[in-house]
Amino acid sequence: MTGDRRHQVVVVGGGFGGLNAVRALAEADAEVTVVDRTNHHLFQPLLYQVAAGILPPGLIAPALRSVLKEQRNSRALLADVHELDLANRLVRAQGPDGRPLELRYDSLVVAAGATHSYFGHDEWAAFAPGMKTVEDARLVRDHILSAFEMAELATDPRERAEWLTFVVIGAGPTGVELVGQVAELAHDVLPRDYRSVDTTEARILLLEGATAVLPPFHPRLRRWTHRRLEQMGVQIRLDTMAVAMDDESVTVRGPAGEETIRARTRIWAAGVRASPLARMLAEQVDTETDRAGRVAVNPDCTLPGHPEVFAVGDMVSLHELPGVAQPAIQEGKYVGRVITARLAGDERVEPFRYVDRGSMATIGYRAAVADAFGVRVTGWVGYLAWAFIHVLYLIGWGNRLGTLYTWARALVFSNNRGHRIITFEEATDQCLHAQRAGQRAAPSLRPAGGAAGAARRQKG
Amino acid sequence: MTGDRRHQVVVVGGGFGGLNAVRALAEADAEVTVVDRTNHHLFQPLLYQVAAGILPPGLIAPALRSVLKEQRNSRALLADVHELDLANRLVRAQGPDGRPLELRYDSLVVAAGATHSYFGHDEWAAFAPGMKTVEDARLVRDHILSAFEMAELATDPRERAEWLTFVVIGAGPTGVELVGQVAELAHDVLPRDYRSVDTTEARILLLEGATAVLPPFHPRLRRWTHRRLEQMGVQIRLDTMAVAMDDESVTVRGPAGEETIRARTRIWAAGVRASPLARMLAEQVDTETDRAGRVAVNPDCTLPGHPEVFAVGDMVSLHELPGVAQPAIQEGKYVGRVITARLAGDERVEPFRYVDRGSMATIGYRAAVADAFGVRVTGWVGYLAWAFIHVLYLIGWGNRLGTLYTWARALVFSNNRGHRIITFEEATDQCLHAQRAGQRAAPSLRPAGGAAGAARRQKG
Repeated sequence: MTGDRRHQVVVVGGGFGGLNAVRALAEADAEVTVVDRTNHHLFQPLLYQVAAGILPPGLIAPALRSVLKEQRNSRALLADVHELDLANRLVRAQGPDGRPLELRYDSLVVAAGATHSYFGHDEWAAFAPGMKTVEDARLVRDHILSAFEMAELATDPRERAEWLTFVVIGAGPTGVELVGQVAELAHDVLPRDYRSVDTTEARILLLEGATAVLPPFHPRLRRWTHRRLEQMGVQIRLDTMAVAMDDESVTVRGPAGEETIRARTRIWAAGVRASPLARMLAEQVDTETDRAGRVAVNPDCTLPGHPEVFAVGDMVSLHELPGVAQPAIQEGKYVGRVITARLAGDERVEPFRYVDRGSMATIGYRAAVADAFGVRVTGWVGYLAWAFIHVLYLIGWGNRLGTLYTWARALVFSNNRGHRIITFEEATDQCLHAQRAGQRAAPSLRPAGGAAGAARRQKG
Repeated sequence: MTGDRRHQVVVVGGGFGGLNAVRALAEADAEVTVVDRTNHHLFQPLLYQVAAGILPPGLIAPALRSVLKEQRNSRALLADVHELDLANRLVRAQGPDGRPLELRYDSLVVAAGATHSYFGHDEWAAFAPGMKTVEDARLVRDHILSAFEMAELATDPRERAEWLTFVVIGAGPTGVELVGQVAELAHDVLPRDYRSVDTTEARILLLEGATAVLPPFHPRLRRWTHRRLEQMGVQIRLDTMAVAMDDESVTVRGPAGEETIRARTRIWAAGVRASPLARMLAEQVDTETDRAGRVAVNPDCTLPGHPEVFAVGDMVSLHELPGVAQPAIQEGKYVGRVITARLAGDERVEPFRYVDRGSMATIGYRAAVADAFGVRVTGWVGYLAWAFIHVLYLIGWGNRLGTLYTWARALVFSNNRGHRIITFEEATDQCLHAQRAGQRAAPSLRPAGGAAGAARRQKG
């Protein structure tokens, strides 16, 4: 598969870290192979807008190979990496149909990211889906939109109230942005769509274990966000965490003690855990991973004792950087430059230095908080700054314009939400399951598993 | 659920027939309830563009209740109708979670459409998906895109050739439009995206049982389409039909006898069958359905002996009209007007008269055939006519502009296909299954079926 004449770089993961590493290798005298379990590069900061029915996933998840099509020294493979063999310099992966795939490397970049963590309660995944992939976002969208449909069908007021209760767990940027969207759907977008139900009666709760929303942000921005969310009808519970869940409720423990909240829709935005590949790296160099399952790397992002192995992004604990896009992007670019320099015979390597570009979060439309280079803005100005930066970072003018158009449409046409298709729990759940189990894509591989599928389809 | 003071109209199905009936009832002194198994109104003529990765489904499938939100005498319910009880004037349906739903009507409009028919070979559904719903289109998109991914992974040239062989069965408008898209993907869109595979080597076949492509069209347009498709690299087999299928091949019988074609991707665009509700209507008035499972109605679209029951669209055999949008749209509007007139005390009803607005089909980008009011155009002009009409019929300026933008983008940016996300066979197959079995939407109902789901998720 890999001609050994040229230096082989294998990049595991086509997210922010991986893609930027590949791009920074454009001028390198090497063959670069990026392996990802999906066929797209996901712009995660806007994923919550897919969950809210604002953006179609395509605009924020272009096909990885089309993003790289003009970089002729790179190739993309759709496969699930399950083993990193540092001793033999081999990456072992699995094609969508389970076929084994072996890639030999001279340089390895591991950028496998993170998934959500339920703090030892993995069973909660069934009751409170998280938001890391396109399928996750579709599932959350299905949950939110279906809850209103079910409320419209419900005849028992108590049941209806349960369908109209939404609990978002975790008040980091994702949780805050998502709960803001739920509030907008209930109060601004959906009211006139329904007849039996008054969607403005929806009860929307935001739970946060820390003592403030957006913990990493500046106190002034936290206070502003807190007030703003409350104005939008969000009930905020600080210093509060989930202690139990089932199909119809979540039990929380807070300053006021324990309470069981009847709610049919719960969304998890609380914790993340590094990819299992981080542990696999750590074990091979006899180090420990940290509490978040991240592996420690040298200041140049190399693995101790393995100058040819780099790790970047959410799966490394370098400088304790936050699990957002910027560190991954900057580390990816840095690693690409390091490898390029080495191949050009330049071994003098500056350690990685993180440039804090600041942080921002939207609180519903036309309102955001932004904190960059000491400048802190809120509200409409913050929203413009937020929108400008995010569109700028999107890949391709087609997606940038498409996103601007969709936003303009949502702002102009009375809070339009253009992408409100509901799919099916069984389906999306299977997606999630397949995904977690690493059985990716390639539908046509086993057309509905032959006989079994046929039998199922016959019901049609 | 339904207050019985005002005249109750129940409309089964929110497609072209149903939606137009509801809209034509805007001024009627009645409460109108439209029941659909999905939460959206699908513009089927552009569904093939979702399968081709051009359009996101949201642009052609707006939420039904948002389409109707300003028509205050109407309401939409998300439920699956399984029984029409004419004797008791009851419609029995099932909510997404299986809850029973009973709707009493004074007037009933049945517009349940059609699904694809495998001519007695329902097991083929597993090997050759059809294209009727948004989920169908996503599944077909997954099949097509994944085939190229698998070809890139394949090391055995024979296997690679099988992944690069695509067979579209049926050369009506859907089949022709879809095969044109596959040809464009292989020849114009994807070549530079792949490294190991030369996608232009793809073998693309179009099978048609009749002796010409686009059978219902004018001979000149048929010939033009035939030539054009061949120029695009499509191999056309006329007077040929599928006689057997399995996971990896399709066996066809034609003038040259029988042949087994090794192909991993097969798409079904051959036959349709009316909704089972057509038979249910026929049985209650002791008539037969026709070969396509359609029920016969009076010239005013009422069911013989039941002036209060109307049936429209693909599920009725009135005037032997083709199974396209126009008849359903016109019949739906007509029925809405008839009921409105009756409620205003005007019983004099003109029989339904169909106005043939002509027919058109695209053969890949920048090329289409159109035949309207005796004017027949082809090529670029035909494409403009086609695009103009189809955008005009989309619902809402937001979707019209969004579609125009997406098309412009696809034309300007070197055949861009913006929506190429691959999901998962298991998933989409489950979708199809759930859908066929009528278990619609409402994901959050049974969060991953509690324990079972939890167990599955734990693998995460």
